[in-house]
Amino acid sequence: MSVDKPAPAKLKARQPRGFVDRGPADVAATERMLAVIRESFSRYGFDPVETPFVEYTDALGKFLPDQDRPNEGVFSFQDDDEQWLSLRYDLTAPLARYVAENYDALPKPYRSYRAGYVFRNEKPGPGRFRQFMQFDADIVGAGSVAADAEICMLAADTMEALGIQRGDYVVKVNNRKVLDGVMEAIGLGGEDKAGRRLTVLRAIDKLDKFGPEGVRLLLGEGRKDESGDFTKGAGLDQAQIAAVLSVIYATSDLHKTGDKPIFAQHLGTPVEQAGDRNLDQMEKFEFEGKEYFLDNLALSTRLLGRALGSDTALQGARELLELSRILEAAGYGSSRIRIDPSVVRGLEYYTGPVYEVELTFPVTNEDGQVVRFGSVAGGGRYDGLVGRFRPEPVPATGFSIGVSRLYTALKAVKSPIVDARNELPLVVVTAMDNKSPEFMPGYQAFVSTLRQAKDDNGKPLCRADLYLGSSGFNAQMKYADRRGAVCAIIQGSSERDAGTVVIKDLILGAELAAASRDVKDSAEHKAKQAEAQKTVPADKLVETVKEVLARHS
Amino acid sequence: MSVDKPAPAKLKARQPRGFVDRGPADVAATERMLAVIRESFSRYGFDPVETPFVEYTDALGKFLPDQDRPNEGVFSFQDDDEQWLSLRYDLTAPLARYVAENYDALPKPYRSYRAGYVFRNEKPGPGRFRQFMQFDADIVGAGSVAADAEICMLAADTMEALGIQRGDYVVKVNNRKVLDGVMEAIGLGGEDKAGRRLTVLRAIDKLDKFGPEGVRLLLGEGRKDESGDFTKGAGLDQAQIAAVLSVIYATSDLHKTGDKPIFAQHLGTPVEQAGDRNLDQMEKFEFEGKEYFLDNLALSTRLLGRALGSDTALQGARELLELSRILEAAGYGSSRIRIDPSVVRGLEYYTGPVYEVELTFPVTNEDGQVVRFGSVAGGGRYDGLVGRFRPEPVPATGFSIGVSRLYTALKAVKSPIVDARNELPLVVVTAMDNKSPEFMPGYQAFVSTLRQAKDDNGKPLCRADLYLGSSGFNAQMKYADRRGAVCAIIQGSSERDAGTVVIKDLILGAELAAASRDVKDSAEHKAKQAEAQKTVPADKLVETVKEVLARHS
Repeated sequence: MSVDKPAPAKLKARQPRGFVDRGPADVAATERMLAVIRESFSRYGFDPVETPFVEYTDALGKFLPDQDRPNEGVFSFQDDDEQWLSLRYDLTAPLARYVAENYDALPKPYRSYRAGYVFRNEKPGPGRFRQFMQFDADIVGAGSVAADAEICMLAADTMEALGIQRGDYVVKVNNRKVLDGVMEAIGLGGEDKAGRRLTVLRAIDKLDKFGPEGVRLLLGEGRKDESGDFTKGAGLDQAQIAAVLSVIYATSDLHKTGDKPIFAQHLGTPVEQAGDRNLDQMEKFEFEGKEYFLDNLALSTRLLGRALGSDTALQGARELLELSRILEAAGYGSSRIRIDPSVVRGLEYYTGPVYEVELTFPVTNEDGQVVRFGSVAGGGRYDGLVGRFRPEPVPATGFSIGVSRLYTALKAVKSPIVDARNELPLVVVTAMDNKSPEFMPGYQAFVSTLRQAKDDNGKPLCRADLYLGSSGFNAQMKYADRRGAVCAIIQGSSERDAGTVVIKDLILGAELAAASRDVKDSAEHKAKQAEAQKTVPADKLVETVKEVLARHS
Repeated sequence: MSVDKPAPAKLKARQPRGFVDRGPADVAATERMLAVIRESFSRYGFDPVETPFVEYTDALGKFLPDQDRPNEGVFSFQDDDEQWLSLRYDLTAPLARYVAENYDALPKPYRSYRAGYVFRNEKPGPGRFRQFMQFDADIVGAGSVAADAEICMLAADTMEALGIQRGDYVVKVNNRKVLDGVMEAIGLGGEDKAGRRLTVLRAIDKLDKFGPEGVRLLLGEGRKDESGDFTKGAGLDQAQIAAVLSVIYATSDLHKTGDKPIFAQHLGTPVEQAGDRNLDQMEKFEFEGKEYFLDNLALSTRLLGRALGSDTALQGARELLELSRILEAAGYGSSRIRIDPSVVRGLEYYTGPVYEVELTFPVTNEDGQVVRFGSVAGGGRYDGLVGRFRPEPVPATGFSIGVSRLYTALKAVKSPIVDARNELPLVVVTAMDNKSPEFMPGYQAFVSTLRQAKDDNGKPLCRADLYLGSSGFNAQMKYADRRGAVCAIIQGSSERDAGTVVIKDLILGAELAAASRDVKDSAEHKAKQAEAQKTVPADKLVETVKEVLARHS
């Protein structure tokens, strides 16, 4: 018996958890999607800017919603001078650093956009990655609600540019000041209560998932789910809960049925307060025996703010009113942009209007239930973020698109932007005599010719690939097939001697192969067979390939 | 005296060393550059694939040239299960992991491309960053030289697609086996001598910088530079140095003058060995009283390999010969792709052909000297890299473009691809009455109209920006100027009352303002002034903006 030498141990090829590779269809479609978003943002006068992936940890701040693990959430490492560096976890904190550092050189207000990967050091799960892409647009240096209106309109226009039909999306707007004012009024103001305020925001954010009763529990002692897991609540008393729910309660039922705008019952404008507006053009609804208009609904939020005696809430209501006026003037009705008091956004740094882009078309979730697709983008006003670095206050607002989520949505609505047929057709040149290196130059010449060939409009005719492996002819045809080639070019010794080349139409070939025996005997079938595999003089290569491609374009 | 409260300490906005922000012109031009490269790679049948930024440290391997600091060079951190993760330092090691992990599912040979940032944990310096972008193309699963030929042609075609003229670039090819064979023959083979081999490669790589005498010193005891700093050499004896220099020596003088192909003196084909080739079409040169042809020069490398008695060198020479035959057949002459024995590439993992794309046009360096622009891309065959993970051997070859360096080059040759005028013209809508929120909706309506306006071909007419700050009218006009707007839209109370709007041609306006007093009195000047600032009914806004834009297109 011979003793085998142990083979050297091989490394296992594996990805870290929560990170994914992306294949050709995904990369190409994302690239087109990003191009459309860039064009849309650019149309609004936004300029691109790019910050690096790595920032000083202290410059990023701790604004992740996961307050339970304040030192986690980000990937960090020490530089050789012992300062802590982190991978960015969003694109907003680095923008704040950028603007603060280049403040005097930038035109103000400063409109900019940027796309890129961000990183979260969290437990990965289904659909929850540790690296994902965001596409942001921000306006820094404009404190006016007109800036927030621009962001909302930009969000709406961008959805339509991406092929999402009007009615299939809605930009939902709220103002954190309203809720902040309510929380202030019920004794949850001040630095030391930031954690509890966040718990309240998160509870409201769960309205979609758990309904008003679930939110009530999360605002109070806590909520036990079906599996018995208990989530500790915000610990509000009954009066406090009632105040918070007064802002959102009435919206909850309609929120799910979707047959009326979700803010209707609570935020309508009483008819007698509508003044000299054109009544015929406005939709009305009744609530508790009183008539309301569906437009300019922020008016009644103002009443609510006044009722609670909070200046902050009142200011928030004023801003919502002003926002809705601008949107109306620019022709963005409530079918596109709506006020929705359940929008809160988890991030601590928002200070005013907050937005969320929701896709409203139905999809079937993992549990087989039909649900709305849900949120693909969000943002808001973050007036304090740049000011952390600057002596002067610097107002700012912006939003962020979740690119992977949007990609999933575009596939769901079959947007042409993510259609694989955007690519040029592929031609594969086979190398029948690949065992003899002296014939490779001839095959190489074919593929070079095809790569330089133009169509009748002077555009590139095709992509062309030369088979470079060492396998035999059958494997090469399988390769052409697997790569999705439209036709294959073949030259064996007899063709080489005759100065000819075979052009095989792989699509027609597959159709003919699938035909029944009867059909195969017909004259028409035989004529088609001649078309599917043509032997032509080598100098007719491009011309014949053009014919094949035209047949399937 | 009142005691001022100390202001809360502000964070300093600063970037970590070696990381940079990128502004609008840079980002937009890079985007266009990447699109051209993608199209070029796609034409060759390469498919996009993307791997994440983070990999297991052991999967990346230690292939950085900086062997002096084997544990540095990469940014690393521990995952919560204590496994080490690293930011990728190139795009090749992650590709090897990807292919190994998905081996059975991929078509083979597998052609793919990818662009992205890579990270080096090194001391930053001028032009030396810790985050930079690469654009790679690779063919995995093809051991034949035809694959290397494809990469070289792809590199050449891509340079031309980017606007670099033929003659302004050259793809230089060598084969590591030639030099590896020579090193083997002089006793530098084996695992334990890897470090010394790398020192030899690095010495040869310095030919450009230090000339042949400098390389001789670096191969021997070492070299002291002008400042007195001493670089330790590879410690070869005189016979070993002579053998290594025999491969590269003769090229060094010509390498600098550039008036003859750089491989000429050493790698020519003696006329009597050229066989039945068409002698009239070949350029000849004399060397040591003997006639050589300029083509097929690898023949004499074969002789060299044989002379040194090394099978490896002989194999390398054979591959160079085969490569040059394929390139010739595909029409890629030595004005585009050339064999150059001084190309070594620092990375330890290369196993066969190595390439470097050099831009040959002159630029002035920091010291005021006129030099060639230099290398913008490089690569080679790395047959061992995927095999680290797999039971079977997996040959592979590819190259990598240094994107920032290429961008600098395209600016130097004024390539239209990086021209700022690729962007749509910008129109700024001013907000004269921005202190009164009730007028913002009207301004918003103007900007919305402009964003939706199309030119005569149905393409978007312009980018449009609404001034959202709180400054007065003069500051708003400065803003329009700073943003590079072609025209500004203005509406004060008198225009609003009259239902009109003012369209100001900012380019014409600037010209008129710069005119002399004499000119300003002329009738022509006054006519132009009327053109430069027109008051029109609000519904003629788009029409009038079109006229202004047409004037400057």
